[in-house]
Amino acid sequence: METICKGFKAAGVVAKIKKDDEKKKDLGIIFSEKPASVAAVFTRNKVQAAPVLLDKERIRSGIAQAVIANSGNANCCTGEQGMRDAVAMSDYVSSGMKLSQDSVLVASTGVIGKPLPVGKIETAVPRLIAALSSDGFSDFAEAIMTTDTFPKMISKQGKIGEKSFSMIGIAKGSGMIRPDMATMLCFVCTDADVPPKFLQESLSFATDRSFNRITVDGDTSTNDMILVMANGMSGAEIGRPESQALFQNVLDEVLTGLARMVAKDGEGATKLVEISVKGAVSDKDARVIADTVAHSNLVKTALFGEDANWGRILAAAGRAGVPLDPDKIAVFFNEVQMVKAGMGCGSAAEAEATKVLKTPEFIITVDLNMGKGESSVLTCDFSLDYVRINADYRT
Amino acid sequence: METICKGFKAAGVVAKIKKDDEKKKDLGIIFSEKPASVAAVFTRNKVQAAPVLLDKERIRSGIAQAVIANSGNANCCTGEQGMRDAVAMSDYVSSGMKLSQDSVLVASTGVIGKPLPVGKIETAVPRLIAALSSDGFSDFAEAIMTTDTFPKMISKQGKIGEKSFSMIGIAKGSGMIRPDMATMLCFVCTDADVPPKFLQESLSFATDRSFNRITVDGDTSTNDMILVMANGMSGAEIGRPESQALFQNVLDEVLTGLARMVAKDGEGATKLVEISVKGAVSDKDARVIADTVAHSNLVKTALFGEDANWGRILAAAGRAGVPLDPDKIAVFFNEVQMVKAGMGCGSAAEAEATKVLKTPEFIITVDLNMGKGESSVLTCDFSLDYVRINADYRT
Repeated sequence: METICKGFKAAGVVAKIKKDDEKKKDLGIIFSEKPASVAAVFTRNKVQAAPVLLDKERIRSGIAQAVIANSGNANCCTGEQGMRDAVAMSDYVSSGMKLSQDSVLVASTGVIGKPLPVGKIETAVPRLIAALSSDGFSDFAEAIMTTDTFPKMISKQGKIGEKSFSMIGIAKGSGMIRPDMATMLCFVCTDADVPPKFLQESLSFATDRSFNRITVDGDTSTNDMILVMANGMSGAEIGRPESQALFQNVLDEVLTGLARMVAKDGEGATKLVEISVKGAVSDKDARVIADTVAHSNLVKTALFGEDANWGRILAAAGRAGVPLDPDKIAVFFNEVQMVKAGMGCGSAAEAEATKVLKTPEFIITVDLNMGKGESSVLTCDFSLDYVRINADYRT
Repeated sequence: METICKGFKAAGVVAKIKKDDEKKKDLGIIFSEKPASVAAVFTRNKVQAAPVLLDKERIRSGIAQAVIANSGNANCCTGEQGMRDAVAMSDYVSSGMKLSQDSVLVASTGVIGKPLPVGKIETAVPRLIAALSSDGFSDFAEAIMTTDTFPKMISKQGKIGEKSFSMIGIAKGSGMIRPDMATMLCFVCTDADVPPKFLQESLSFATDRSFNRITVDGDTSTNDMILVMANGMSGAEIGRPESQALFQNVLDEVLTGLARMVAKDGEGATKLVEISVKGAVSDKDARVIADTVAHSNLVKTALFGEDANWGRILAAAGRAGVPLDPDKIAVFFNEVQMVKAGMGCGSAAEAEATKVLKTPEFIITVDLNMGKGESSVLTCDFSLDYVRINADYRT
């Protein structure tokens, strides 16, 4: 099913970064035969890992040709040595492939505060380069997994006039339950011909409609990044507004699909739930309420318990700090109305809602009945496994 | 050990509000022989339960004589019927004890959105009144428990000139892990003679130094309240600044002690941890960082796992949205320094820190080394039992 994206190759290998006896892939590369337009969005956390700081400098040129990424170590809070290690990691690729130093980007995810084992990376890079292949993207997707339970990859095609272009997106992140610190990485390759400036605008727009819907603004990890590379090798030129709109649609679909996968794979999650807020005074207010409900531990544990505890939803909405009239609120689980005018709709409605709660994906709608503002956020439930995973993460 | 607080009596009985076969106390009363000065602080949640709305009206007079409280039902999101039920609940007491209607306050805690079983309360009130006793405060403390694992009561004495006064404080709340929705109730009785205006100022001040240190401002449940009643029957008059300072100290001690109990009894908690932030640009900044670290699920699950995962502490501080320089941060677990200049202090320090983590109470200090701002917040760890308790709360 893998779509070939012209001129792009990828690979993933075992470099034993996670542990000496590691059997899972933990080092990956994406390479474009031609220098590609590049755009990126990065974490807004004030503590930023070395690869984030390095890439921020390097993408200023608007051009990149390769990205090397590892899991098992975040190379964060590692000081000047960390920056030297990030540069070294990119140098193994640029010297091995005869690329300009600045055209190689770096990404890392894993434990914070441990020195990056650059020796292991140096040893593995020749094997990594040798493994580059146009169907190596699934190996790359595996190589960047940490607590993810499945690799996340989507490919789409678009057409500009007579020219088709392809796009492959890969992400890692065990999402919604605190993507603020569980690093989210996303890499998108396309053979469309996209000027860097529009690529950046398009990425920012698509991010806002996808990954920013599964997280709180600014609430990002030390290592989060989304990189897009466009090498133009399909010949499909993204210039006029019509072609920009077409390209935007494809990018939106790829990022939205990946964001859903990340939310669905939330650490320990058993359910994917959309929190949709309507009838707010403004879209911004709706978003604040949606985020507060989506992040409430009490709402999320009730979802895990398949308990239609709408009181917790109202209480979360009430503490969001935006105007609302408790006596006007309605709450729905899919089409089942649970709350009308701020009060419960009774045990029959509750029985119906409980059926909805037993399904793996559903929508909780909170209608404030005050205005036209609306917004939605994806979340997941909060399970015993979340605690198990995160209590023992480093051991 | 129970201190007599002159003129105050209390009781707690089984009214079967929680369940028909309930064997735990769930209805309590506190009564003052003389009308008492009263002051209160209430939840800032926009969704407010009927008893909160009723009490807000009634305390305007500055005088109250009794408070009736139940667990098992929050009487919240219950509409006009809820308000009628709250009034009825107080009327059973005022008519049964021949008090003015407005001098009886009401508090409720428990499930949101179910009608208050007023019939059961009406039936139980005569028994409750008959049980009133000067040593009935521990029964009252039991009657307001929900997921609390132990009753929370403190008594202190103070002296103004030759006159001694007493103070008894009782709280419920399975705190820090989201006191925003796990209702926190606190009742304080004192036989000091305190004018209502100073009583309110004193309460606000003490709350800010105690219960507001275990929660985020505004992040309160639909039912939270702290009530203080002062009946003056000790003859100790709180008038001059010196006596006000003495009274303030006693109230601070009572509320701080109760707040620690609430944090320690956090749902499923196994550890009580103080997050102390120093060296911030301002006290306000320090508070924001302390709150962000104290509320981080990843930090709290690491505490449960006894994992000295300082990277999560730095990442939480970094996303708090206030100025900091990652390269200046120091982190201590009690006296053990784990992070210096933004980097880990190595495996020996980690081994020492792990010993600290195995103790039931400790302090995590984050020093930003930027200014003189400081603040601290109490938190607890995030355990498997938290999820178990909250997934099954209503069943």
